[in-house]
Amino acid sequence: MIDLTSVLAFNAAYADAIDSDHLEEWPDFFTPDAHYRVTHIENEQQGLPAGVIWADSRDMLIDRVAALREANVYERQRYRHLLGVPVLGESQPGGLSARTPFMVARIMATGETVLFASGVYRDRFVRAQGRLLLAERVAVCDSTVTDTLMALPL
Amino acid sequence: MIDLTSVLAFNAAYADAIDSDHLEEWPDFFTPDAHYRVTHIENEQQGLPAGVIWADSRDMLIDRVAALREANVYERQRYRHLLGVPVLGESQPGGLSARTPFMVARIMATGETVLFASGVYRDRFVRAQGRLLLAERVAVCDSTVTDTLMALPL
Amino acid sequence: MIDLTSVLAFNAAYADAIDSDHLEEWPDFFTPDAHYRVTHIENEQQGLPAGVIWADSRDMLIDRVAALREANVYERQRYRHLLGVPVLGESQPGGLSARTPFMVARIMATGETVLFASGVYRDRFVRAQGRLLLAERVAVCDSTVTDTLMALPL
Repeated sequence: MIDLTSVLAFNAAYADAIDSDHLEEWPDFFTPDAHYRVTHIENEQQGLPAGVIWADSRDMLIDRVAALREANVYERQRYRHLLGVPVLGESQPGGLSARTPFMVARIMATGETVLFASGVYRDRFVRAQGRLLLAERVAVCDSTVTDTLMALPL
Repeated sequence: MIDLTSVLAFNAAYADAIDSDHLEEWPDFFTPDAHYRVTHIENEQQGLPAGVIWADSRDMLIDRVAALREANVYERQRYRHLLGVPVLGESQPGGLSARTPFMVARIMATGETVLFASGVYRDRFVRAQGRLLLAERVAVCDSTVTDTLMALPL
Repeated sequence: MIDLTSVLAFNAAYADAIDSDHLEEWPDFFTPDAHYRVTHIENEQQGLPAGVIWADSRDMLIDRVAALREANVYERQRYRHLLGVPVLGESQPGGLSARTPFMVARIMATGETVLFASGVYRDRFVRAQGRLLLAERVAVCDSTVTDTLMALPL
């Protein structure tokens, strides 16, 4: 049984790992064969699977973290996620679906803070070894022009 | 008995209906004779009842949705609500009062995202047929100049 | 035992007191010998204790409210806090540590709304006389250039 409070706590830890520069912990929120994608609303509505970021395993997320570290993204920017309360679907054998809205601010080295992205996570949660994990997280951005090419994870 | 978790879940579903373009579901969050108003802090402090949006029945909300559909507002803009945790009042025979802060981003067709509105919902919740419903929601905007004339609901 | 729901409710009331212009209630969220500090991420990482705001008792917070009232800060600006869900640490004899992300919008008299600050509260909660209180709140801003000199509390 996955309840609202446990999903709230999961999402809080997820955002905190990214925003605290503990990027290496980020893949641990996913199952080994998880699907993760960042896309935008128009692609989703047209059923276009390609997103600006796309991974179908935890290993690909680990690779992405390594690439971000090499590119030294944190020298140039910082993120702050603010997540809303999830709307939970029904529990299914394949897991629990959930929709969670997000806003992300980007703080540049100059100190300037802008609202970088907003959207909704479309998630599927499973419970494995007593822990909650993401089997799928699709971050659907509201804007079609968010620059996420070399960005930190949403 | 209305507890914090059930109000959190209610508000999450409310925001999701608007932001997912399921506007037709929005009136269903209210009682048939509900009062809904969008106003701003100075009007409220001066006791001016008139708001930029005003309705005293669910039917008026249904009419508003029809008008927004006709005006094709979604061609031009998209919203993303992020709601805070409610401060609950005491349970009264007339329902439970609550105050919930909000920020709303507006995403234009150009992709530009701006912080469109912030404020607080002043609510009265009732329980009817086992469901939580809004008998009253007054969205008090912090800014006196928010352009909500033809906007989506807050 | 301090659980997630009680911290959520505490933080909601804290933000509501500030944003509703009930500043005089703000010190009551702290223990008599509480530490409160507003600083930024680079100062924290370098272990520099000095913040832009610094207090080590509730009385200093009371003094700060008096100074803000005298400066008539509310004539010129308004805040809206949006707080995320806390990441709770382990319960210790000295209290419960928690990390809570925040975004704060500032609404100027002109009506302009900007994302004023983002960051994380690093907190230590204790329970005293049946109530939850802050023994420590360090508001660590993401940006190094937030103008908090004469600002409302974060």
